[in-house]
Amino acid sequence: MNKQRINQVTENMKKAGLRQIIVSSTASLYYLTGLWVEPHERMIALYLDDLGRYVLFGNEIFGLKSMPDLPLICHKDIDNPVEDLAKAVKAGKLGIDKFWSSKFLIELMELRKDIVPVQGSAPVDRARTMKDQTEITLMRNNSRINDQVVGAVIAMLKDGVAENYLASQVNKHFRQNGADCEGTQLVCFGANGADPHHSGDSTVLKAGDSVIFDIFTPLNRYWCDMTRTVFYKTVTDRQRQVYDLVKQANETAISRIKPGVLLSEIDKTARDIITQGGYGEYFTHRLGHGIGLECHEPPDVSLASDIPLEVGMIFSVEPGIYLPGEFGVRIEDLVMVTEDGCEVLNQYPKELQVVDWSI
Amino acid sequence: MNKQRINQVTENMKKAGLRQIIVSSTASLYYLTGLWVEPHERMIALYLDDLGRYVLFGNEIFGLKSMPDLPLICHKDIDNPVEDLAKAVKAGKLGIDKFWSSKFLIELMELRKDIVPVQGSAPVDRARTMKDQTEITLMRNNSRINDQVVGAVIAMLKDGVAENYLASQVNKHFRQNGADCEGTQLVCFGANGADPHHSGDSTVLKAGDSVIFDIFTPLNRYWCDMTRTVFYKTVTDRQRQVYDLVKQANETAISRIKPGVLLSEIDKTARDIITQGGYGEYFTHRLGHGIGLECHEPPDVSLASDIPLEVGMIFSVEPGIYLPGEFGVRIEDLVMVTEDGCEVLNQYPKELQVVDWSI
Repeated sequence: MNKQRINQVTENMKKAGLRQIIVSSTASLYYLTGLWVEPHERMIALYLDDLGRYVLFGNEIFGLKSMPDLPLICHKDIDNPVEDLAKAVKAGKLGIDKFWSSKFLIELMELRKDIVPVQGSAPVDRARTMKDQTEITLMRNNSRINDQVVGAVIAMLKDGVAENYLASQVNKHFRQNGADCEGTQLVCFGANGADPHHSGDSTVLKAGDSVIFDIFTPLNRYWCDMTRTVFYKTVTDRQRQVYDLVKQANETAISRIKPGVLLSEIDKTARDIITQGGYGEYFTHRLGHGIGLECHEPPDVSLASDIPLEVGMIFSVEPGIYLPGEFGVRIEDLVMVTEDGCEVLNQYPKELQVVDWSI
Repeated sequence: MNKQRINQVTENMKKAGLRQIIVSSTASLYYLTGLWVEPHERMIALYLDDLGRYVLFGNEIFGLKSMPDLPLICHKDIDNPVEDLAKAVKAGKLGIDKFWSSKFLIELMELRKDIVPVQGSAPVDRARTMKDQTEITLMRNNSRINDQVVGAVIAMLKDGVAENYLASQVNKHFRQNGADCEGTQLVCFGANGADPHHSGDSTVLKAGDSVIFDIFTPLNRYWCDMTRTVFYKTVTDRQRQVYDLVKQANETAISRIKPGVLLSEIDKTARDIITQGGYGEYFTHRLGHGIGLECHEPPDVSLASDIPLEVGMIFSVEPGIYLPGEFGVRIEDLVMVTEDGCEVLNQYPKELQVVDWSI
């Protein structure tokens, strides 16, 4: 158990008037306990009260061992997994992990009609939002690897290469760097790039295509995430104009980051630039997302996020313009808020690049 | 919308006394609507009543299009995603998808104090359990591909090859066959095989190792899943004894499958053989799981599963013996229940194989 993190969470609970919470998300549990459990359809739950007392409830198939500082109560597949937990909770308000499957919550409410479930992730989410030194070291290092990987796959662009081949090469490079797992990497040629979530398929590269690499992978449990867009062999004036606008949005937003500024203002800074450039309706998503043990985690970086920046927050800044049937451009960096601004974790250049290795 | 499947679900709702349900799982939504949406932290919900009326609620970022037969209500990231849904539900019992994130359910309960959330996945799960002809054709074909892939990677066994290299080769073969995504394939050498969930790391192969390939990937949305265990260069009497026992458990369990038999009896058949062979405590998991749009889906194939077999069910039969510090053996096939028995979807041989391509 990480006592410092537990203390931070119980302090957050007190501020929020929460006496007890259930933590079930894989990443949040790891953050507090150091145990990585992917329960899939099975139940895991850390019960924590505001005095810092806790018990872990899990399925014996997870192979968890009792530890001196972590009491453990195991159930089997043939048991009702919620039964022991229902005995432990106290009457009244109970904070519930946002991602806990509804089937467990409904079962708990049926067994304990005296509890009042309320949103319960904020105390842990808030602690996780401000990275500590261990986390910062890992995330800096992982983004450095990501810089190298994107360079390696940009070097592989050639006529007829397929999106999904390059995606597999991204995974290969990450594997060689000790990635925790392989992922679905976003590699998008030409019109495919107009869908912000297009993932590499059998489309092949041809001259004139924009090429988006949005690559993200966990190493030592912490995610990196970066996007670069380059052009293959030629670039049109329109492509250049769109690229410059997205780059300006990315860089200007980053220049405004410092403690106290609202996240919504950072989103607005980028959005205003793209809107004034005439492409506002084609920037269809929020500016970014917090990142750490999950690729998407708090804080939200959007117009709706009236949260002030604090030292140690790490999040993405990823404006994009998506022109259906034509092409897309997205430029994404991870940034960390510092005392007087921010540190950009990605260093791969953002100058417009027209790739033609045959010359 | 698949009207036939909707009708089956509303019929199941009536039998269960459920007037309204919320369907949110990616696979269940795809099953009914043909739309594949991975909402991650965002909300999607199909509201369905027992008269077969439905509305889909989703985030506009999903890029869903209104269709004549599927009314759609979209929210944005800055909206409260549950608000529109809260207006649509009726007072009283409301069946909730088992995997719906608790944060949405809690928000819905706060907006609508007159609803009573109950477990709501069974009507769709039950429909999905009995595969229709479209699904059977896809799953037969996918298991045929899996037979070929396992053969291809067994042919790559050689001194010093790493588990994670072979795992990447499994993914490569599946990619060439049109897999939907890359996955974490389980490749386990020697003592690593004693952990049923070990995934390929940098361990290298040496003579005398058992080698477990547990490979599973979705193609056209439907999963295949098969396990074979072979021995590299030599096999000990103890390895042979354990292998024969697992094979006997697999084959005997399969021979008992026919409509009307309880799933728990199939698990017990395999378990009794392993227990009588003296290894009962080392068979640490259930016999198998339903499979289709998800790799693990109902029906559960365990001692706790008092559900009679029905024509069209597809599930895995995967007994295993795991000897900590030594080795593991698992043999897994997918089977489909037929009128008078079952069809085994995997055809790669199960005879004990000692691999030495250098001879």
